[in-house]
Amino acid sequence: MALLIKNALLVTMDAARRVLRGDILVEGSRFCRVGTIGRNDMLGLSKLSVIDGTGLWALPGLVQAHVHLCQTLFRNQAEDLELLDWLRRRIWPLEAAHDEESMEASARLGIAELFLGGTTTVLDMGSVRHTAVLFEVARATGLRFVGGKALMDDPGTFPGLRELTAECLAESDALAAKWDGAEEGRLRYAYAPRFALSCTDRLLREVGERVAAGARLHTHASENRSECEMVRASRGATNIHYLKQAGLCTKRSVLAHCVWPAEGEAEVLADTGTAVAHCPSSNLKLGSGIAPIPDYLGRGIRVGLGADGAPCNNRLDAFEEMRLASLIPRPRFGASAISAERVFEMATVGGAEALGLEKEIGSIEEGKQADVTLVDPRGVHALPHAPEVYGTIVHSLRAADVRHVVVAGRPVVRDGDLVGLSQEALRRRAADQWEAVRSRAGLGRGPV
Amino acid sequence: MALLIKNALLVTMDAARRVLRGDILVEGSRFCRVGTIGRNDMLGLSKLSVIDGTGLWALPGLVQAHVHLCQTLFRNQAEDLELLDWLRRRIWPLEAAHDEESMEASARLGIAELFLGGTTTVLDMGSVRHTAVLFEVARATGLRFVGGKALMDDPGTFPGLRELTAECLAESDALAAKWDGAEEGRLRYAYAPRFALSCTDRLLREVGERVAAGARLHTHASENRSECEMVRASRGATNIHYLKQAGLCTKRSVLAHCVWPAEGEAEVLADTGTAVAHCPSSNLKLGSGIAPIPDYLGRGIRVGLGADGAPCNNRLDAFEEMRLASLIPRPRFGASAISAERVFEMATVGGAEALGLEKEIGSIEEGKQADVTLVDPRGVHALPHAPEVYGTIVHSLRAADVRHVVVAGRPVVRDGDLVGLSQEALRRRAADQWEAVRSRAGLGRGPV
Repeated sequence: MALLIKNALLVTMDAARRVLRGDILVEGSRFCRVGTIGRNDMLGLSKLSVIDGTGLWALPGLVQAHVHLCQTLFRNQAEDLELLDWLRRRIWPLEAAHDEESMEASARLGIAELFLGGTTTVLDMGSVRHTAVLFEVARATGLRFVGGKALMDDPGTFPGLRELTAECLAESDALAAKWDGAEEGRLRYAYAPRFALSCTDRLLREVGERVAAGARLHTHASENRSECEMVRASRGATNIHYLKQAGLCTKRSVLAHCVWPAEGEAEVLADTGTAVAHCPSSNLKLGSGIAPIPDYLGRGIRVGLGADGAPCNNRLDAFEEMRLASLIPRPRFGASAISAERVFEMATVGGAEALGLEKEIGSIEEGKQADVTLVDPRGVHALPHAPEVYGTIVHSLRAADVRHVVVAGRPVVRDGDLVGLSQEALRRRAADQWEAVRSRAGLGRGPV
Repeated sequence: MALLIKNALLVTMDAARRVLRGDILVEGSRFCRVGTIGRNDMLGLSKLSVIDGTGLWALPGLVQAHVHLCQTLFRNQAEDLELLDWLRRRIWPLEAAHDEESMEASARLGIAELFLGGTTTVLDMGSVRHTAVLFEVARATGLRFVGGKALMDDPGTFPGLRELTAECLAESDALAAKWDGAEEGRLRYAYAPRFALSCTDRLLREVGERVAAGARLHTHASENRSECEMVRASRGATNIHYLKQAGLCTKRSVLAHCVWPAEGEAEVLADTGTAVAHCPSSNLKLGSGIAPIPDYLGRGIRVGLGADGAPCNNRLDAFEEMRLASLIPRPRFGASAISAERVFEMATVGGAEALGLEKEIGSIEEGKQADVTLVDPRGVHALPHAPEVYGTIVHSLRAADVRHVVVAGRPVVRDGDLVGLSQEALRRRAADQWEAVRSRAGLGRGPV
């Protein structure tokens, strides 16, 4: 199977940041040629499918470095609460009420939105149960998915989700053995202790040993001031320092949020090569704060972007996160705090680096995995265009401008609609399964 | 001419905040019946046009209480600058280079975006010249438009825009005489001293006399800390107090921004009935700050929302401003700082009140002007819906979900496209006129 994308503006995000008019030839799951493609380049290719890119811009498939597909079904159902109340009163009871069917509906709804908005790769944190369902749905839909089971073993954490240390680790190991590298590397595993407060010290250290041996790590850190105070009081160290002691700050680690680094913790992130997943909408919505991203970038810390879960956003829209990543640091760091190009890097090559996938994705380059998002920049809301493409992409374009999306060479969105999936069927399934999980959780229908 | 909108969910924003499934009958420019409409209600109506609202939500046409249509053509061309540099280095030179043709292209491009995103009414500030063009375009396109010529007479202000006090007042008076109340009240005039620093004390006081006699007032205040310091140093009073001394804080006044109220100035706004136009994207993009809107609302101050100009946003999208108005106060005021219903009020009845048009627009009620925006809430990005509609509208819906828009009984958007206007023609015209105005301004094509 080969795919030709013809005559688009290619925003490559390669090392030279080339932006050129041209074509893209995909063979199997990889970019085979990028530039001007003639007939000779296509000799011997059978079954060539073509996307006409005329007038469109081809971007590297967007990377979201922190999402929770298990929560998509809870969108619009957990409003106006700060983090710990939001978890205890709504999210944890709802996660605990998931069964395989509701988990599947949640993941499918989220992936549909991600694809339609141009996101091709996510780093996902599951709930404690039904993690295999997430991998199965990622496998079936074509999403590039790095994910893992949430680990919650602290005796004080939410009873409906708490598991025994050895058992939840054993399940993680089994999931990692089965899924890490599956589908030719499109699926990967990341160990996911939920956050310091929900985990025992023993669990974190045992995960740390796995990370030292090469495993990926995905957790939350320093999202909310109350959380930071509770970690310090109960764990005897500030949050990121505490994670470092457990061996969780490494080149293979992604910490979501990092809104409130304590003294010396930005240095820890930089020195250990730990990546940050920045979630601007979520940090605002839960009243958490505004992460010091320009400071992190200045220290060379790797930063990706993420929408977090649907109930703290309430969208899974990489364009929205890019725009906010540009806007929200400015009152504190100044109007030139962060350039549009730097923001677009966070959503592409930066996100790829945060996930340790920079050799595979994040840019449109021959040999890399063929993840591409084609946007239509001609909407009246985007004109005139900026002198360089990044300003227009970050500040004016929107998810609804996405026309075609390809992951690993496979088209998942054509002409603005999902390939092979009925939105109407997704809607019905989501409505039924939301009602089912809400009912099992014993939560009412009324306002929160 | 009559129009029937059938079988929508009507989010009326009437005093009882009724949300009901039903129909809307429009005769001429006004809502004639709201609720269930039978055949008897339509007896004697000739030329009935029908919009099928099945599955859609009918919202009051959205109101933006602060925009600059004259700047739409400068979108994406004034990046990463704080207010005063942004004005001096980019916006003022470009405004000074406008001719009638570029002004018309700028207004048409902006109005197309406003309509496609569900905005039906704006309070606009023009540039110093070609104000009549803005009214002509509003008349022709069908936008509900309250606007006025920007007044800049201070000897120290930008030379290319500075005018003589008496002359610019005389021109304002002539424009007001011609346009205020035109098109059966769809067009209204607002006197628009640009901001304290660009105006002489005499000008502000003369405008104050007109406001005392019943005129509308639209200006900027306390947007940026440097601006506030310069006003205090040069005018001998803090910004809002200074405007009050000139007679500009009244029930007919709208002050855009009010990000940095000095001691006692929130009380001035409340005591005088002055309205605030909150522009969250713009306040972030120019690094200005985050306005204390929950505090203003708590004092009973009228607050509307606005996108401001395209070059400080870079969109003119009421859904984006609603979402940000909900999100950005939270790190400071808490996650329950402002409810979705309260935000939606700011974009509808609140905006109408800010503009003094609450008897005419802002809600779907019999007798009011028939301004309606029909959105499709069925996108996967919006599901499941919130228990009450406002959460979904503010946090999940987006401009691209707008399907039909009606202003004063006249459809301006049908099936997501402009009625009677070619987007391709708008695009070409905007590109040509941007190139022309840029060239006249002597600004390069490269990055800012």
